[in-house]
Amino acid sequence: MPSAPSVQRSRSAWSLVLCALMLLLFAGCASVKPDPLPSWNEGSTKQAIIAFVAKVTTPGTPAFVPLPERIATFDNDGTLWAEQPFYSQGLFILERVKVLAPQHPEWRTKEPFASVLKGDLKGALAGGDKAILELVAATSMGMSTAEFDALVRDWIATARHPRFNEPYTAMVYTPMVELLAYLRANGFKTFIVSGGGMAFMRPWTEKVYGVPPEQVVGSSGKTQFEILGGVPVIMRLADPGFIDDGPGKPVGIETHIGRRPILAFGNSDGDLQMLQWTAGGSGARFMGIVHHTDAVREWAYDTDASVGKLSPATLDQARARGWTVVDMKRDWAVVFPFQAPQAAHR
Amino acid sequence: MPSAPSVQRSRSAWSLVLCALMLLLFAGCASVKPDPLPSWNEGSTKQAIIAFVAKVTTPGTPAFVPLPERIATFDNDGTLWAEQPFYSQGLFILERVKVLAPQHPEWRTKEPFASVLKGDLKGALAGGDKAILELVAATSMGMSTAEFDALVRDWIATARHPRFNEPYTAMVYTPMVELLAYLRANGFKTFIVSGGGMAFMRPWTEKVYGVPPEQVVGSSGKTQFEILGGVPVIMRLADPGFIDDGPGKPVGIETHIGRRPILAFGNSDGDLQMLQWTAGGSGARFMGIVHHTDAVREWAYDTDASVGKLSPATLDQARARGWTVVDMKRDWAVVFPFQAPQAAHR
Repeated sequence: MPSAPSVQRSRSAWSLVLCALMLLLFAGCASVKPDPLPSWNEGSTKQAIIAFVAKVTTPGTPAFVPLPERIATFDNDGTLWAEQPFYSQGLFILERVKVLAPQHPEWRTKEPFASVLKGDLKGALAGGDKAILELVAATSMGMSTAEFDALVRDWIATARHPRFNEPYTAMVYTPMVELLAYLRANGFKTFIVSGGGMAFMRPWTEKVYGVPPEQVVGSSGKTQFEILGGVPVIMRLADPGFIDDGPGKPVGIETHIGRRPILAFGNSDGDLQMLQWTAGGSGARFMGIVHHTDAVREWAYDTDASVGKLSPATLDQARARGWTVVDMKRDWAVVFPFQAPQAAHR
Repeated sequence: MPSAPSVQRSRSAWSLVLCALMLLLFAGCASVKPDPLPSWNEGSTKQAIIAFVAKVTTPGTPAFVPLPERIATFDNDGTLWAEQPFYSQGLFILERVKVLAPQHPEWRTKEPFASVLKGDLKGALAGGDKAILELVAATSMGMSTAEFDALVRDWIATARHPRFNEPYTAMVYTPMVELLAYLRANGFKTFIVSGGGMAFMRPWTEKVYGVPPEQVVGSSGKTQFEILGGVPVIMRLADPGFIDDGPGKPVGIETHIGRRPILAFGNSDGDLQMLQWTAGGSGARFMGIVHHTDAVREWAYDTDASVGKLSPATLDQARARGWTVVDMKRDWAVVFPFQAPQAAHR
């Protein structure tokens, strides 16, 4: 039976060939890395991000940054999610005014409430910071943290954006969500540092951005520990507390993180000091600004915006210091997760 | 040549025996787990800790807690490191007064400085909170965060404890450092929540406890972002800010973490509200109190302590609610890392 050994030999040969093929495929798979930022169009912006991450994560090089120091901070409104036609938290507050109005007949003639109830946002905000604080106090304070948490969870699960008719958790920028994940995959700890209310963001940032509550820094009112009927609660007081905006952002970073970021991303004048603080550290740094240039897929605004103003002085400083300015229309293949991706369209 | 196949067979047999032996050894190694808390004596306290961790980390059981919610908070002074004869930060401040005295001739006759310079701690503290704030302002404020950080790093690297003549970073409780590591190995995120100054702890907690700056919550004064000569700095102002003690601890936890701990450890009345807040959550909880009962290896103190007072009311509440009270003398095989371990010695 001379055929048996020959079959065996040919089987062995086939096995060898198969193994070699698998090894080749394997090596091929390993060398063709998937694009970590598929929602970013090819170009200098995407290159700058990838080059920075490669630089600080390559051991043995001068720019290498040890894991614990890879701190990245992101503004929220206008940087991670949409802020037009108005901050989402503002829309939440206006809706709360309407819900609570039957219990407050006096609001029909009292500003800023009267304007809100007439749908006149401009009139309501004419009272400036005082009017805003009054609206916040009336809608978001004088309750426990657990009660406020429940209100936010309910709103975020049900409310819809006025222009896109999508839930607010879909009004996030796909390229930025990708960037957060890419940074974390490279050992970064990602933080949100926002002028928005800390307690307004924390109920949903973990699910939407992968950023846990303890990595969300924001504005907050004073709170107080109490025991009510044997149950410990933390009450939200009407006293203003900390405003995490402008020069407040480096303060918020120092208070909550205690380390200087090596990468920071913002989109407006309120982020300038965070970017300056980040830039002021030694070693490799990345400062990014999202410039809203896409009136079709999102909005185009900067100098004259009523919300998220980005002045020429800030843009000039960014360009002079070599910060990366994202041109949304040019650099992003997709803006929102509910839109179809497209190549650079100009 | 009949010997060749026979040698081959015996080699195969030996290989089989060896493989089987190795497998058995391997299985043996895997089943004999090393003690995760070797510095804790066997007994109900150690059992309670290990049983709690096993309970919340076993998937598919009612008490299972998902990874992101495994938050553990620890007081620092008297819980993780020694607080006798006086808080370490107090000793740091007293030393700073002496260093700065030549620049302040008026301190020789002005309280609380005069008492400090005479070595009369009791006299210096007779002025209460006002005196303490004055000492803090004079020694730790009016400088940038970077300058204060450098002062603390220098002090912690050189100062020695008055009784044990050891650096303060060796004045930590080995069983508690072990517990922090054990919790982290089981997916917990460990936080410090201390009445001490946040900026006083952050320069060394990562190295000593494995707790990074962003997981250190503490008291803090107001700070302010400034650009001095083109360089961005954060200045420490003399204005009092947040006191992370007593009812301030749940507030600090909510502000910095935004999640309720499932395990908390303290040692004094100032930790009571943190323990109540932790206990008030749903699901499995662990509340621990370090009771200082060992006058030989450390100190024995509670009700009458000038620092770290633990009143009978707090101990009664702990016992009534089934919290775990660590009897340092009985439960700890070793207190400080520079002492030789010993079995329970009573």
